[in-house]
Amino acid sequence: MRITIIGSGNVATHLAAALKNAGHNIVQVYSRDMQNAALLAYHVKAEPVDDLQYISSETDVFIIAVKDDVIGVIAEQLAKYDQLLLHTSGATDLYALLAFTDKAGVIYPLQTFSKVREINFRQVPLCIEGADEGITRQIKELVQSISNNIYRVDSMQRKILHLAAVFACNFPNYLYEVARQLLDAKGLEFDLLRPLILETAQKVQERLPAQVQTGPAVRNDVGTMDSHLKLLAETPHLQQIYTMLSQRIIKMDFTPPADK
Amino acid sequence: MRITIIGSGNVATHLAAALKNAGHNIVQVYSRDMQNAALLAYHVKAEPVDDLQYISSETDVFIIAVKDDVIGVIAEQLAKYDQLLLHTSGATDLYALLAFTDKAGVIYPLQTFSKVREINFRQVPLCIEGADEGITRQIKELVQSISNNIYRVDSMQRKILHLAAVFACNFPNYLYEVARQLLDAKGLEFDLLRPLILETAQKVQERLPAQVQTGPAVRNDVGTMDSHLKLLAETPHLQQIYTMLSQRIIKMDFTPPADK
Repeated sequence: MRITIIGSGNVATHLAAALKNAGHNIVQVYSRDMQNAALLAYHVKAEPVDDLQYISSETDVFIIAVKDDVIGVIAEQLAKYDQLLLHTSGATDLYALLAFTDKAGVIYPLQTFSKVREINFRQVPLCIEGADEGITRQIKELVQSISNNIYRVDSMQRKILHLAAVFACNFPNYLYEVARQLLDAKGLEFDLLRPLILETAQKVQERLPAQVQTGPAVRNDVGTMDSHLKLLAETPHLQQIYTMLSQRIIKMDFTPPADK
Repeated sequence: MRITIIGSGNVATHLAAALKNAGHNIVQVYSRDMQNAALLAYHVKAEPVDDLQYISSETDVFIIAVKDDVIGVIAEQLAKYDQLLLHTSGATDLYALLAFTDKAGVIYPLQTFSKVREINFRQVPLCIEGADEGITRQIKELVQSISNNIYRVDSMQRKILHLAAVFACNFPNYLYEVARQLLDAKGLEFDLLRPLILETAQKVQERLPAQVQTGPAVRNDVGTMDSHLKLLAETPHLQQIYTMLSQRIIKMDFTPPADK
């Protein structure tokens, strides 16, 4: 397929590279910043543009991978080409595109991308939604060329996924940073915790988190929790986080749910 | 070395297996429960015992891997053999043993163990502490046979490590479970999040968490955070967790610390 990429951020970069590798023709890469457009365009052998007036109509699909709040503005300007218009946002309704075109859809890659890390795109879960069955089929054909994990997900479900990703990714990463700071204050290296962090994530690849919960809270080990709170005496905000999360773990029904 | 293992839980099991594999002679395995003692003893070709009066004096070191609150009781009974006495607890002071013997030390493996998962023990960070330099050297020689990651850590540092592990392992695992429940309520599979969870942990293997923090909070994207809080309207405790962690991420100084 002939594909135009709108955006040059992490999602645009990884998606464009995966599509190029799968044999698609990346026609143009658009970014407001010509340097960013040129960098990504060079990698995927496309033409860089920094003004929407130079967008070529010789394409089959526009993939809009930009900040949520400009998706609508850009969709409005691209609708006139009457081609498939897809956005990649977890938090944005399909309606943001449907307001301007019937040929609308979503490819939401559920992964945390950074330009500095390679990723095996075939394992990235891609959540797709189309304005109708025909469009959904078209999107599915397109993304099957780059990933083995395709899920049909409607706009409401996608918003929940986006929220769940905050709990599963952004918050744990913040807690890693808290742990790093605790160690740093005592002259200990973060390397000490890296194997533990990796194993914790690996454990839930095969099992469910409730089945592998460990630590003082799930054992209701009050003595250990008390001594932990004393160690946090100088950081009341960490005491608050410790108490709140521990209480939830204690209260939680850890009867393992049926394994899926 | 001739080694006696006191305990048959996760730590005892993984440590005994690693020591046996490294060529040490596991003399006896003690557990209050004969079935548990027998199971582990069978794996490491040792004699199982369920009563401390049958402990053999023909050993070089006792490794006490039992619940924190019985370490003292057991140490008191083993002190008479006048051999090296080691505990494996993150939260317990060396003093718990020093009260009964001078030949005291600690091997604290900083990892989350479960009997159902194999682990590469050579990569497990082992935090060691000895009553004096000679004992520390003895412990170091012993554990170098099973791990490449040996750290000298005093009792205060070890308590901080144990606390940091709660933030780096137990709390993230609870947040995985929250994410799973959010998905489950909308008929979505946990499989959708597994690659994200793994990648989040893999990112901090090479980089520091503050350098790879993503999500609405670090961007101070108030609109997205508001819509997430609306989605959590029926679960006030999750709203509370979301708000508290997001506010900390917003307030945090994410100037990346010097990479180590």
